Amino acid sequence: MYIVGLMSGTSLDGIDAALIRVNNSGLETEMEMIEFMTCPFPKEIEKEIMQSLSADTSNVQLICSLNFKLGKLFAKAVKEVCHKAGFPINKLDLIGSHGQTIYHQPLQEQNYIPSTLQIGEAAVIAHDTNTLVISNFRTMDMAAGGQGAPLVPFTEYILYRSEAKGRLLQNIGGIGNVTVLPKQASLDDMYAFDTGPGNMIIDEVCRQLFNISYDEGGNIAKQGQINDGLLSYCISHPYIMSPPPKSTGRELFGKQYVVKLLKRFESVPNQDILATVTMFTAKSIVENYRNFIFPKTSIEEVIIGGGGSYNKTLLNMIQSLLGNSIRVLTQEELGYSSEAKEAVAFALLANETFHGHTSNVPKATGADSDVILGNMTFPPSYLKGRKNAF
Amino acid sequence: MYIVGLMSGTSLDGIDAALIRVNNSGLETEMEMIEFMTCPFPKEIEKEIMQSLSADTSNVQLICSLNFKLGKLFAKAVKEVCHKAGFPINKLDLIGSHGQTIYHQPLQEQNYIPSTLQIGEAAVIAHDTNTLVISNFRTMDMAAGGQGAPLVPFTEYILYRSEAKGRLLQNIGGIGNVTVLPKQASLDDMYAFDTGPGNMIIDEVCRQLFNISYDEGGNIAKQGQINDGLLSYCISHPYIMSPPPKSTGRELFGKQYVVKLLKRFESVPNQDILATVTMFTAKSIVENYRNFIFPKTSIEEVIIGGGGSYNKTLLNMIQSLLGNSIRVLTQEELGYSSEAKEAVAFALLANETFHGHTSNVPKATGADSDVILGNMTFPPSYLKGRKNAF
Repeated sequence: MYIVGLMSGTSLDGIDAALIRVNNSGLETEMEMIEFMTCPFPKEIEKEIMQSLSADTSNVQLICSLNFKLGKLFAKAVKEVCHKAGFPINKLDLIGSHGQTIYHQPLQEQNYIPSTLQIGEAAVIAHDTNTLVISNFRTMDMAAGGQGAPLVPFTEYILYRSEAKGRLLQNIGGIGNVTVLPKQASLDDMYAFDTGPGNMIIDEVCRQLFNISYDEGGNIAKQGQINDGLLSYCISHPYIMSPPPKSTGRELFGKQYVVKLLKRFESVPNQDILATVTMFTAKSIVENYRNFIFPKTSIEEVIIGGGGSYNKTLLNMIQSLLGNSIRVLTQEELGYSSEAKEAVAFALLANETFHGHTSNVPKATGADSDVILGNMTFPPSYLKGRKNAF
Repeated sequence: MYIVGLMSGTSLDGIDAALIRVNNSGLETEMEMIEFMTCPFPKEIEKEIMQSLSADTSNVQLICSLNFKLGKLFAKAVKEVCHKAGFPINKLDLIGSHGQTIYHQPLQEQNYIPSTLQIGEAAVIAHDTNTLVISNFRTMDMAAGGQGAPLVPFTEYILYRSEAKGRLLQNIGGIGNVTVLPKQASLDDMYAFDTGPGNMIIDEVCRQLFNISYDEGGNIAKQGQINDGLLSYCISHPYIMSPPPKSTGRELFGKQYVVKLLKRFESVPNQDILATVTMFTAKSIVENYRNFIFPKTSIEEVIIGGGGSYNKTLLNMIQSLLGNSIRVLTQEELGYSSEAKEAVAFALLANETFHGHTSNVPKATGADSDVILGNMTFPPSYLKGRKNAF
């Protein structure tokens, strides 16, 4: 099977599209990545997504329209990654689309119940690419009482399980997320949770104080000093010390969080602020390990993925906080693409659903049962000549 | 196959649930209705839906949460209609859920593109009922360039086509919608469009002026006088004389429309206002017939369905505007349930999608091609023991 996986994360970098070839499913999965690219959002779309993320600036008309606009962009990303690979799109078997999360509320809040909302209309993707689409992966896990995240553990298990080493897979996208893979793990031995902020505080500080979208290589943060008052303030956020299972979205550490923080610490020099929120991001990750992982699992390697793996300052901070007995690596050093990881994951999850397998990991999400993730949308030509869909 | 169809219309009466037995599909469809009921919305949910419908009062958190809340209520409606019928839910094969439309924008407006948004999370319905769900029927037609509405023509064709008579099927829900079935029609001979307001103006006037939710039997309107100024004002709305294909949602004739109208005509007595908007509703229907149907198709019967068919004053007005050569009937007089019509339609559309058939009518919606409507969401146990989904 040829599958394109699509991911568009909370960091709003654009649409990640990975074209992969897959044989079999579940533990017999063999996969090879053929092509990967990131299609940046047009500026006006990025603005509309930002608007749609906040209760203050969003509204039903915007969300209704943006759902279709993103569907068109996702379809375009599928075509572009196939074109880049020289792969004829009419040979594509399946698309796994995560969608753009515009709200994720794992816990009840006032009158609002646990729920999640991804947009990027699957009907538009299926129509424009003439390909079967599986999308909306998070809702069924939440319907089963889970937090709808993290969903990558299943595919990480397939790709990273080791006979010899206990491994942590740390993804640093907008949000930070860790998967624990003890050596010789069974699927039941694995667990995962969101550690807290990934790049999102760092990037928002870059936008507000330096008018740039991210700190390339961590070069600015490297030149700053850690401000202890700011660091204590940050690390006291109750999310960091909440025990797993837990998941967060853009709400907790988003723009409003940074605005408040910058107001409170306005006397601190700009590059010290950036250095300190980078250290906070590192510490939020390592503190979670110390409190919730190391006491029960022996770990030899931490493998960092996501955009944050290019921030050398952040990686050095994590390594120095961990000490020398644990090795910090990037996915590239293991032969995988760090950038493509999540897009590949949703291609593999689509493969599982297509084959009728459950693929949530209840231990990671808190769901009460194994469920089949996502729903299927049929391209116009899909079922012609078949007697019925099954 | 046993199927439950779920419909929750713009009039916010509640969730219509129809349990039907179906054999075959397409033109060979044989269907029998087993049970029907309407599950009213809890007051606080009705309020949240109202909030979510307007660009001014909606926001992403509300919509995210309400999507899941409605999913739970839809699942509950499925259980209740099965229970009422004494039908064991584990024998149910399929659910067709229309969802609650919270926005429908058939045409580009400023920066907002043609799009539609139905909520009532399918994953929650599939999980809570342990049944396969097909939902989100309108998006694929819009992806194919259609207006996403009307979708009932296909099922009306199956149920109402006559060898002897040209028929109009007029549905009066929140919105008014007509399907034209010439005698001995083929599917291609049929067409349909939204005539304009159904009960929505009448009901909103009832709420605002009489503090009741609808005019039972049309009894209040019956006692009022038609106000010519108000009637001219209403009938001048450009939607009425726009040629088909056309479709409308709550936006054009919703609360804001009524508030404006009541302000402008505040000196007119309350029951005259109600009489006049009832006459406007009748006239908007008949004027559409005169301009866009009668010139090309011979019609012997108009069959009225939807909640509006219980408004005798409205029916009498339609009959008197049409004159004696055309017979106005309700669906009950033909042996069908008027109330259940739309819920049955979405059960039958789910049946078509399950069998891999297209079921939009491009002539009615303006779509550029036949497409497979809706997407499939699998209950946790659905695919156990199957090799794959197909």
